[in-house]
Amino acid sequence: MTINFKDFFAKGLGKASDSYVSMPKYNFVGGHNAEENIPIIELVNSSKRVLKKYGHNLALYGSKSGHQGDLKLRRFLVKYLKSHAQISIKEENILITSGSLQALDLVNTTFLNKGDCVLIEEATYGGALARLKSRGINYFGVPVEQDGINTEKLENILKKMRTRSIVPKFLYTIPTVQNPTGTIMSNEKRKTLIDIAERYNFLVFEDDCYADLTWDRKRPGAIYSFSNSNRVVYCGSFSKSIAPAFRIGYIVADWKVISQIMSVKNDGGTGAIEQMILADFCEKNYEKHLLKVIKTLRHKCNVMIESLKSEFGSTAEFIYPQGGIFVWVKFSDCMDTSLLAEKASFNGITINPGSDWTSNPEIGKKMIRVCFANPSENLIKEGIKELASLCHKEFGFPKISSNIKRSN
Amino acid sequence: MTINFKDFFAKGLGKASDSYVSMPKYNFVGGHNAEENIPIIELVNSSKRVLKKYGHNLALYGSKSGHQGDLKLRRFLVKYLKSHAQISIKEENILITSGSLQALDLVNTTFLNKGDCVLIEEATYGGALARLKSRGINYFGVPVEQDGINTEKLENILKKMRTRSIVPKFLYTIPTVQNPTGTIMSNEKRKTLIDIAERYNFLVFEDDCYADLTWDRKRPGAIYSFSNSNRVVYCGSFSKSIAPAFRIGYIVADWKVISQIMSVKNDGGTGAIEQMILADFCEKNYEKHLLKVIKTLRHKCNVMIESLKSEFGSTAEFIYPQGGIFVWVKFSDCMDTSLLAEKASFNGITINPGSDWTSNPEIGKKMIRVCFANPSENLIKEGIKELASLCHKEFGFPKISSNIKRSN
Repeated sequence: MTINFKDFFAKGLGKASDSYVSMPKYNFVGGHNAEENIPIIELVNSSKRVLKKYGHNLALYGSKSGHQGDLKLRRFLVKYLKSHAQISIKEENILITSGSLQALDLVNTTFLNKGDCVLIEEATYGGALARLKSRGINYFGVPVEQDGINTEKLENILKKMRTRSIVPKFLYTIPTVQNPTGTIMSNEKRKTLIDIAERYNFLVFEDDCYADLTWDRKRPGAIYSFSNSNRVVYCGSFSKSIAPAFRIGYIVADWKVISQIMSVKNDGGTGAIEQMILADFCEKNYEKHLLKVIKTLRHKCNVMIESLKSEFGSTAEFIYPQGGIFVWVKFSDCMDTSLLAEKASFNGITINPGSDWTSNPEIGKKMIRVCFANPSENLIKEGIKELASLCHKEFGFPKISSNIKRSN
Repeated sequence: MTINFKDFFAKGLGKASDSYVSMPKYNFVGGHNAEENIPIIELVNSSKRVLKKYGHNLALYGSKSGHQGDLKLRRFLVKYLKSHAQISIKEENILITSGSLQALDLVNTTFLNKGDCVLIEEATYGGALARLKSRGINYFGVPVEQDGINTEKLENILKKMRTRSIVPKFLYTIPTVQNPTGTIMSNEKRKTLIDIAERYNFLVFEDDCYADLTWDRKRPGAIYSFSNSNRVVYCGSFSKSIAPAFRIGYIVADWKVISQIMSVKNDGGTGAIEQMILADFCEKNYEKHLLKVIKTLRHKCNVMIESLKSEFGSTAEFIYPQGGIFVWVKFSDCMDTSLLAEKASFNGITINPGSDWTSNPEIGKKMIRVCFANPSENLIKEGIKELASLCHKEFGFPKISSNIKRSN
């Protein structure tokens, strides 16, 4: 008897996944790292050390640290976030998660019911948007400028919402190396944001995944540090700074929030070996490692920017990112980048179309996000050249690439 | 301004978690392992080997294997499940998960909507029950005997359901070293079960987490192997056989099912280092390691059984388990084991009350589940002695322990 599995699947599921073939030649999507920047020797040393010393703890769920996560890793984070993000907390204020994606899921589950409302940045992380959509959450986008979210427009939106009795649960923001704009929110705006959140009584969900990747290796004080009332739920990750295949992120919040989030994290704990290795690695090598990573990223960013300028000329606009792994590009000529992304994908070039990365897909129609962390310098140059050529073929621009006018 | 976080939390959340203090002295709950059985030297060697050889792959989400999980680990499982569980599959039929708890969540999300109906074993894994409850699923329990689920009663239940037009989506079963009864389903019943599933058109969700821990190191063919139409969704884990703090489990199913499950597993992949280490470790050491683990477990099981006999005498009944890490105990005297568990917990002894482990809490009222894998031989003896003493104090039985009559 043949089974029609569709008869059994739950209602409302998305499209089934495709099987994995291989990475595209020109991979400009995803928060990957450069292979040469994985600190292999240091990881080998850390893993040897921690397995010998603490390997027996693996016999217990939670490895003698309980379900909140490895105590040594949380101790490192307490010190690190104090010195680098001006966050003053104790170990009890940290919950280690399986990547910051689990952090997003846990925070959403803890605070949101279907039909609830949240505020987001107008251009924001596609994965966060997809999660809100799939939960049936109403979200409102606030424009982002060179120095972060537009707080005046934020307040205007809140005033309008108030007249309609809509109360947002939280504002989701990526203030430092914003995804996708690469901007950093100013200290003034951080203060203003907390002031507005106090007056309109909503929480701030601060996603600081890229904060360790600023070009000058300086981080502004986290929005978390500006609130006297623990109004901020903060999350971070090691995926972007060390390795995305490490699935270790963390949530920082008031214990009342952490203990409630823990009640929905019923996964038997986050992988202990990764936590143990990270705790040891970070204590000894994190700072040195970051300087190396940032140097590579900054160089690749310059290569990407130069390639975009050279291949697309005045048809592509962007703000020079202040850190991170991506550039947010706006094409001045009228087009739909979802179509471009589709055509490019057939030709071995992957890019994120802006409509997936904006609260209102119409706003993102002329945008793309291109990641430069993984491909080599040559692949970046070649890939952007190919993309420009394809774009010209499909959409008639750019007419000039590398100072050479195209034939039609 | 002080925040009342309760105003922000989603509706319907459970109680906030307590902070972790330490393990209880007599820990008879949870699927822990014995510290002395963590293969530390082998894990050190494997981690060194794989990090040097494949560490650069960590730069990519999915580590060049895609989101289905480490290809080497899946290859090992294809071979292993063929030789040990008679399951014939390809790598595409396996999805690596972050522990089998994530496997449960993913399968439930893929197949179940609120209000759907499933069949379970009358005594079953508490975590599975809690998950069904929290999703608003209606479940019906089927009694389990020495040789597995009672297939006659199963069919009777199905007949009744049919008259009420209730169609179950799947039957969730732990056929090999059933949790909590420690029984193994016979081959005849496995065949009958598939026959019934065909006739009544439901799926079988086979949880085989303990199948590697049978005393004779033999595993019956998985129920999966009895279905010609891939009617079974199968899951397994390395938590019980190697280390619970390793969060690696897996789902085996038809590609149509796997690809749909993958669409709901949007977590950025399962921890790659753990998968890499496991793949290398298992290829070289799994069989030898298992023989050592089983030897320890069998010895501890005997210590537990002797302690229960000695301390509780005829007031405690149980089936001698055929493998695994727990004994399912029934007290003949009338009592509520939830109360016993509560009192015991205050005295440093943790046990699972049967009501959390049964489809109908009333059935479990006289039962407890006691795990013997983690505590030492002496702690098992002492802990059960303490439990008997406490039980006598609170409930008036057992009146005789260690051949000595208690004073009142």
